[in-house]
Amino acid sequence: MISDQAQISRADLSRATGLTRTTVSDLVAELLQEGLVEEIGHAPSGGGKPPTLLQILADSRCMIGVDLASHEFHGAVVNLRGKILHRFSVPVYNPDGEQALERVYELVDGLLAYCSIPPLGIGIGTPGLVNGNEGIVRRSVVLDWRDLPLGGLLHSRYKLPVHVANDCQAAALAEMIFSNTHKTPNLIVVKIGRGIGSGVVLNGHLHMGDGFGAGEIGHMVVKENGVRCRCGHFGCLETILSTPFIVKQVQEAQRRSPSPILARMINSVDEIDFKLIIQAYSAEDALVKQVLSTAGQFLGIALANYVSTINIERIMLAGSMAVFSDVLIQSARQTICERTLEALGVGTSIQVSNLGNDIVVLGAAALLMQHELGLA
Amino acid sequence: MISDQAQISRADLSRATGLTRTTVSDLVAELLQEGLVEEIGHAPSGGGKPPTLLQILADSRCMIGVDLASHEFHGAVVNLRGKILHRFSVPVYNPDGEQALERVYELVDGLLAYCSIPPLGIGIGTPGLVNGNEGIVRRSVVLDWRDLPLGGLLHSRYKLPVHVANDCQAAALAEMIFSNTHKTPNLIVVKIGRGIGSGVVLNGHLHMGDGFGAGEIGHMVVKENGVRCRCGHFGCLETILSTPFIVKQVQEAQRRSPSPILARMINSVDEIDFKLIIQAYSAEDALVKQVLSTAGQFLGIALANYVSTINIERIMLAGSMAVFSDVLIQSARQTICERTLEALGVGTSIQVSNLGNDIVVLGAAALLMQHELGLA
Repeated sequence: MISDQAQISRADLSRATGLTRTTVSDLVAELLQEGLVEEIGHAPSGGGKPPTLLQILADSRCMIGVDLASHEFHGAVVNLRGKILHRFSVPVYNPDGEQALERVYELVDGLLAYCSIPPLGIGIGTPGLVNGNEGIVRRSVVLDWRDLPLGGLLHSRYKLPVHVANDCQAAALAEMIFSNTHKTPNLIVVKIGRGIGSGVVLNGHLHMGDGFGAGEIGHMVVKENGVRCRCGHFGCLETILSTPFIVKQVQEAQRRSPSPILARMINSVDEIDFKLIIQAYSAEDALVKQVLSTAGQFLGIALANYVSTINIERIMLAGSMAVFSDVLIQSARQTICERTLEALGVGTSIQVSNLGNDIVVLGAAALLMQHELGLA
Repeated sequence: MISDQAQISRADLSRATGLTRTTVSDLVAELLQEGLVEEIGHAPSGGGKPPTLLQILADSRCMIGVDLASHEFHGAVVNLRGKILHRFSVPVYNPDGEQALERVYELVDGLLAYCSIPPLGIGIGTPGLVNGNEGIVRRSVVLDWRDLPLGGLLHSRYKLPVHVANDCQAAALAEMIFSNTHKTPNLIVVKIGRGIGSGVVLNGHLHMGDGFGAGEIGHMVVKENGVRCRCGHFGCLETILSTPFIVKQVQEAQRRSPSPILARMINSVDEIDFKLIIQAYSAEDALVKQVLSTAGQFLGIALANYVSTINIERIMLAGSMAVFSDVLIQSARQTICERTLEALGVGTSIQVSNLGNDIVVLGAAALLMQHELGLA
């Protein structure tokens, strides 16, 4: 509660929580002693003695947040308000499982070297299916891990609390805890980049799913008789909307019926790549817009399925594809309205997360705040 | 806790809840005084004084459970163990909203007349979009209700606690609270009859959704360019798997390429109806099985979307279409495996609820137990 409010008095804490004044005072005394909370002067008096205000001591602890889902491993030292204090990255080139683990150690070693304040622990967001309760990566194709007890290994090495989650699930928790937008108890974050996944927060808590696979919409089949996916199925959302497939679709469209804007841009590079597509999009290239608009319809199918199953109204987009949010959201909204009950589609909002590229790192830190400080 | 266990001692309650012995004794004393719980002799002694066992006094209260989603309104007086004590029904023929409400009063009047023990309250499961927090039916096309404060009206009339939910959501709660099968904190109930809907229980509690539309998979689009649905969209699950559409598909298939078994059966009736299809299914008619198998694939699409979004492993089928569960489940399972990550599909189980036609009535009673007795 102190963390959620900028500043709050013991009396207001008692009113808001329903705990007695004595209990609140005892608990606050503990937090003051642990140095997590500080007194910061007085509020205007309502007549009697002016109440003392409390706030989180943002730099009393730091958190190590790690993102293993980007093209290089990166992490940060984060304070209790979600402020990034230091960043550190380690390049990774198609590692085998053992090498990937070594790179993680290297990254965490580097981050801990930057810690000038006591670390609360280490949070990890990783691609793959993760048993978040036991810190075990059940399967990550990208990192070549199967049943890796990542949490246990890091805990043995660093003697700190460690929490591990899927990168997209962590991203959802980041949005819940660190976003400055209007707080809601339920939300979905959809992260679209080289892969696609999502995370679901229900009643303030991460919903991991019985098999830890909640949010795995990258492999939801959204197109009948579609392209073969790396998972072995056909027509998964990833085969349409992930960056490699967007690049492929733009290349093919350009071959079929060239756009002059794109043609001019290609002169300076070998082939159309993702960077070029972003430039063409900024230049309002119609071909790029058309490819994205069609892809957005398939995003809409996945989101419509979310609406029809759990009817969460706040959906946030993250990941490198979020730069195209204008056209993606417009197209997806239209599709949602065509595929769900009117009352439900109308209530659904899609926005872009403002946590940017830090969303997984912050999510990893949010895991620590939820587990170690009881934040919900 | 006492309700969940058949019999339990105060000492075991204290161990299981983490509450002190004194607190448990005080709370049990209250429950004994209210007559909700009784002492039933002693457990074998572990050395000292033999502990007194407690159990729920199943007939200390009754509950009025009402199902407005069947072709006639029906309800029951139910005890605290979910035993049906009396049933009562009221026929309904295409009512306007006002008439439908009158029939509800008639039904509840009738049920209360049967109550020989103090009623805990009235629970209602109704088709449509229901604001369960405020007891308002936002929209029910079938019953011609829009923003009807059903909970408030019934409370004013009967001076009893009233809780209202969508019929399929109530069914999910029934499965959670009254089913004798292995308990899990998460489950999905899919009810397939004249309409299709589902309910989701997460962490023991009904998940209604931000717009109260969680589980509305009857209007999830599962077939591109499909048949027009009463909701205005095309290819909704209801246009494939609900009883009227199954009848239609069997009729059409029989016209195209007649099955001899069906042809013989039709001689005794005017046209193929749902009852005849059940008979033909029992007689292992290949045409009927083929229609159901194809329809089951579309059920599989909807369930696969559930798996990819929230990954709940326990899915239960209910409603009149559950008689075809063998072929539907086989077909749906196959489709789920083709449309979700292997690890997630494999972990998903689909079974038939054993609560039968009482599932909504029991769900309405379960609403009361959850809200009035704090059961989760």
